[in-house]
Amino acid sequence: MSLVHERYLSRTERAVAIMAREEPVVYEGGAYADALDAQTLASYEKNGFLVLDGVFDDTETQALLDEVVRLSNDPVIRRREEAVTERGSDVVRSVFAVHKLSQKLAALARDPRLLDVARQILGSEVYLHQTRANLKPGFTGKEFYWHSDFETWHVEDGMPRMRALSCSVLLTDNTACNGPLMLMPGSHLHFISCKGETPEENYKSSLKKQETGIPDELSLQLLAEQGGVHAATARPGSVIFFDCNTMHGSSSNISPWPRANVFMVYNSMENTLGDPKYGLAPRPEHIATREAFEPLKPLRQPEYQ
Amino acid sequence: MSLVHERYLSRTERAVAIMAREEPVVYEGGAYADALDAQTLASYEKNGFLVLDGVFDDTETQALLDEVVRLSNDPVIRRREEAVTERGSDVVRSVFAVHKLSQKLAALARDPRLLDVARQILGSEVYLHQTRANLKPGFTGKEFYWHSDFETWHVEDGMPRMRALSCSVLLTDNTACNGPLMLMPGSHLHFISCKGETPEENYKSSLKKQETGIPDELSLQLLAEQGGVHAATARPGSVIFFDCNTMHGSSSNISPWPRANVFMVYNSMENTLGDPKYGLAPRPEHIATREAFEPLKPLRQPEYQ
Repeated sequence: MSLVHERYLSRTERAVAIMAREEPVVYEGGAYADALDAQTLASYEKNGFLVLDGVFDDTETQALLDEVVRLSNDPVIRRREEAVTERGSDVVRSVFAVHKLSQKLAALARDPRLLDVARQILGSEVYLHQTRANLKPGFTGKEFYWHSDFETWHVEDGMPRMRALSCSVLLTDNTACNGPLMLMPGSHLHFISCKGETPEENYKSSLKKQETGIPDELSLQLLAEQGGVHAATARPGSVIFFDCNTMHGSSSNISPWPRANVFMVYNSMENTLGDPKYGLAPRPEHIATREAFEPLKPLRQPEYQ
Repeated sequence: MSLVHERYLSRTERAVAIMAREEPVVYEGGAYADALDAQTLASYEKNGFLVLDGVFDDTETQALLDEVVRLSNDPVIRRREEAVTERGSDVVRSVFAVHKLSQKLAALARDPRLLDVARQILGSEVYLHQTRANLKPGFTGKEFYWHSDFETWHVEDGMPRMRALSCSVLLTDNTACNGPLMLMPGSHLHFISCKGETPEENYKSSLKKQETGIPDELSLQLLAEQGGVHAATARPGSVIFFDCNTMHGSSSNISPWPRANVFMVYNSMENTLGDPKYGLAPRPEHIATREAFEPLKPLRQPEYQ
C-alpha cells in the first residue's frame, strides 16, 4: 500500500499528528440489527463507548467468573503462550483466545446481548479479532497506559479501517479503588499518530508494558481537555462497549480486590486483516485472528451454568 | 525503652501481628477546642478520617496552589534536600518543611479551620511534626502503597503514642481518574506490625518508594474486608483529616491532571518525640521536627492573597 492511500500513518520518525477519523462510528445507521435504542446508540456514537449496567445477572456473572478463575489456574493453560503473566511474577494477567479454550466463553461471544450490539454498531456480520480474560490482581495490579487499540491493530495486524469494537464483560466490582477502565469521551474521532518504529515481536513485551504506540502527552492532554476522562466504575455483570479507536487506560490496583473481565473484540467481516505495516511479521493467531474469518451466529439461549 | 513497655513492636524478624490500638482516637472527649460538631467528631472517631468539603473558597485555594507551584519551580528550593523528585526523573514530587519555606503555608498551618480541628481531636496544644507540599504529576504519577504513618513515625522518629493527625488540603480536583488518596475506614484501631529491619537513612529512598514498613497482604485484606476502602474524591478547597494510624495509599496517576495538596502533621505537645527505635539515627529536621516543639497559635484572620 503506498503512502498516498495510507490514512492513518503511525510509528514513523515523522512528527506526531492528530488526524480526523474518516469512517463512521455507527454503520448503516444502526439498522443492521436491533439491540440498542436510538438514544443509547447516539450516546455511543458521540462518546465512543457505552456502559450497560446489569446485562448479566448474578448467577451468570458468578459462573463466568468461576470459568475465568479456572482457566487462569489451569496448569496446562498457564504453560501455553495464551497465558500472559505480570511483570516480575508468575501471576496470570491475561489469557488470550478464551473462545477457543472454553466452551462457556465461546458461548458468551455469541450471546445476542453482546453480539447483536456489535452487529448493529458495525452494520455487518462480525467475527472475533481477539478475545481474552483479564485478571488484574489485587495489591500489585500494574497500570496500563493510554492507548488506542486501533493504532496497534492497524500497524501490527493490518486492520484496514475503524470498524471494530471491544466489549468488556465485568466479572468483579469496578470501583474508584481498584484501577477501573478509564476512557476519553470523544477521543475515537481523532487518530493520534505515534512516533517511533515498532520492534519485531513487539507483542511479547507490549502485552505486559507498552513501549511503542504510545501517544504523546500533548495530544492526550488535548483529548482529555476536550472530552474529559471517564472512569467506568460499574457492578459485576455490567458490560462496557467501546470503539476500536477510543483512547483508554487504567491505573494501578493496590486494593486487595482483583479486577476480572472477559474482553472480546468484534471486527466487521468487511474489515478483515491485510498485511501488517512496514513488513512486520504477523502477530500470532491467538492475538489476532487471521487464518479464518468466520462470522458469528447469535446463540439464542446461552447458558453459563 | 525495654521491650516490656513496647506497645507497638514493628520491623523485627518476628512474625507479623495485628495489635489493638491502646489510645483514644478523640482525646478529652473533644472538649479542648470547638471546631467540629458531635456528629462529625463521632464519624472521625469511628472511621479514622474525615473529608470536609469546601473548607477553602476558590480564591484561597488558587492562591495556595500558586504558592505550591512557585515553591516547586523555584530553582533554589529544587536544589535543597527538602525537594524530593519522582523516581527516574527530575519532576518534584514533594517539598518538605513548607511552613519554613513559605509565609503563606506557615499561615495555613495556623488557620483555625485546620488547627482548631487538630487541637480538638488531640485534646491539647499541638505542633507541626512534618509539613509538605505534594505534586503528583499527570501521566507519570506513581502509586504510593498502603502504609500507616504512625508505624514509620514510631520506629524511625520515636513518636511514642497515637496522638497525631494529618491534614491534606486539596488544591486540585481529586477524582477517580487521578489517583486520589484511599483510606481504610476503621483501620486506625489496629496496629499492623511490619516485618523486616530498617536500613540506615531509609528515608532517602522510602519517600520515593517504600521498601520497609510495608504491611503484609493478609492484614491488609482483613482491614479492607472489615471496613472497605474509601477513595477520597473531592473538590479543590476540601480538606481530609486522618488519624496517624489510618491505613492509606494511592494508585498511579495516568490522567493528564496533576494532583496537588498541602499536607501537614499535627502532633500533640503531650506526644513529642523520643529516640528512634533500634538505635537508628534520627531523620533530618525537615522530615521530623525534633529541635524545638513549639505549640501553634491560631491565626484569627489568615490571608492567602
